Amino acid sequence: MRMAELSRESGVSVATIKYYQREGLLPPGELTSPNQARYGAAHIRRLKLVRALVEIGGLSVAAVREVLARIDESDASTHDVLGVVQQGLPGVRVDVDAADREWARSLIDTIAAERGWRLPPGSPVVESLIGVLCAFREIGHEWVLDALSCYAESADRVAAADIDAVARLGSTEAVVEGAVIGTVLGDALLATLRRVAHAEASRKRLGD
Amino acid sequence: MRMAELSRESGVSVATIKYYQREGLLPPGELTSPNQARYGAAHIRRLKLVRALVEIGGLSVAAVREVLARIDESDASTHDVLGVVQQGLPGVRVDVDAADREWARSLIDTIAAERGWRLPPGSPVVESLIGVLCAFREIGHEWVLDALSCYAESADRVAAADIDAVARLGSTEAVVEGAVIGTVLGDALLATLRRVAHAEASRKRLGD
Repeated sequence: MRMAELSRESGVSVATIKYYQREGLLPPGELTSPNQARYGAAHIRRLKLVRALVEIGGLSVAAVREVLARIDESDASTHDVLGVVQQGLPGVRVDVDAADREWARSLIDTIAAERGWRLPPGSPVVESLIGVLCAFREIGHEWVLDALSCYAESADRVAAADIDAVARLGSTEAVVEGAVIGTVLGDALLATLRRVAHAEASRKRLGD
Repeated sequence: MRMAELSRESGVSVATIKYYQREGLLPPGELTSPNQARYGAAHIRRLKLVRALVEIGGLSVAAVREVLARIDESDASTHDVLGVVQQGLPGVRVDVDAADREWARSLIDTIAAERGWRLPPGSPVVESLIGVLCAFREIGHEWVLDALSCYAESADRVAAADIDAVARLGSTEAVVEGAVIGTVLGDALLATLRRVAHAEASRKRLGD
């Protein structure tokens, strides 16, 4: 297909497709004349993935390039690729002092022991977790700790269901696209369901 | 205490305190001279609550005024007040066509039946849920439905733990402040724990 059709099929504008090509996120088409190229199904799949990473996942162009390079390495496992995707997702960045960090770190160690989590030190998600826990502490709302084990257990259940569901999608590209969408839209889904559940729990526990 | 001390104690600037007073979110102090007023512990509590509602919850001034009015009605239950708070929290607003709405509505009915949820029709959280489900559908990622029951069950567990924890905070003002902070920062906590759990589930399920 020609560029115009690639744009129609993928829902990505011609200008954006050309930008992705200049940035090395989309391989060139097969040249059929000095000014015309032909594109195939692989280009559509790649374009949809790039769009999900950039527009839904909020990854930088450099992070997308790294994810794609890993997908294209034949010996990278899907787990390796998902790890690179996760590193690129925007996280919580909060400055915390040494005492607060120590406090959060020891809570996280307790939860990790309960859940059998390995938690590579210095990983961005662990840094995000330290930031969120310290935000509760800073405004004097440590009561959340009463619910922390329940949060971690629920996160484990949801994450296992997520990985099971995306693993069924087949190709590494489809799994990666599903993981990005599932991570970002899944946050919104879980947050919204939690609000519904709050209303129900409040009625049962505090209503008349 | 004087205005300057109220500002120091509450961490809210004098200009913001005066703005809250003009908007009717903070009662006037007791006049000790035509130009000086005295404030007490009730002002500090109210100021902290207003700040949590505005800065963390993202409620409009009109929504905060309605929450405060409900708190000050002696016969409103904590459940009633939490309902008003929840209505004021920003939600997901997505335009969905009739067919997608029908599809989302029937999924939600199934989940509500599984969970024993009542779901008042037209409530903002149900509208948000319709919007999020349709967002998955629109980009062709209905696989999330495989995990939906698990998401809803986890939301119920977390919400019950949240309501138990904030109910212990005592006064309606403290419970409401806790609910706002728990809703908003709790979203960030759950999302971050889910990312940690994703890495662990990916390692167990897809790693080598």
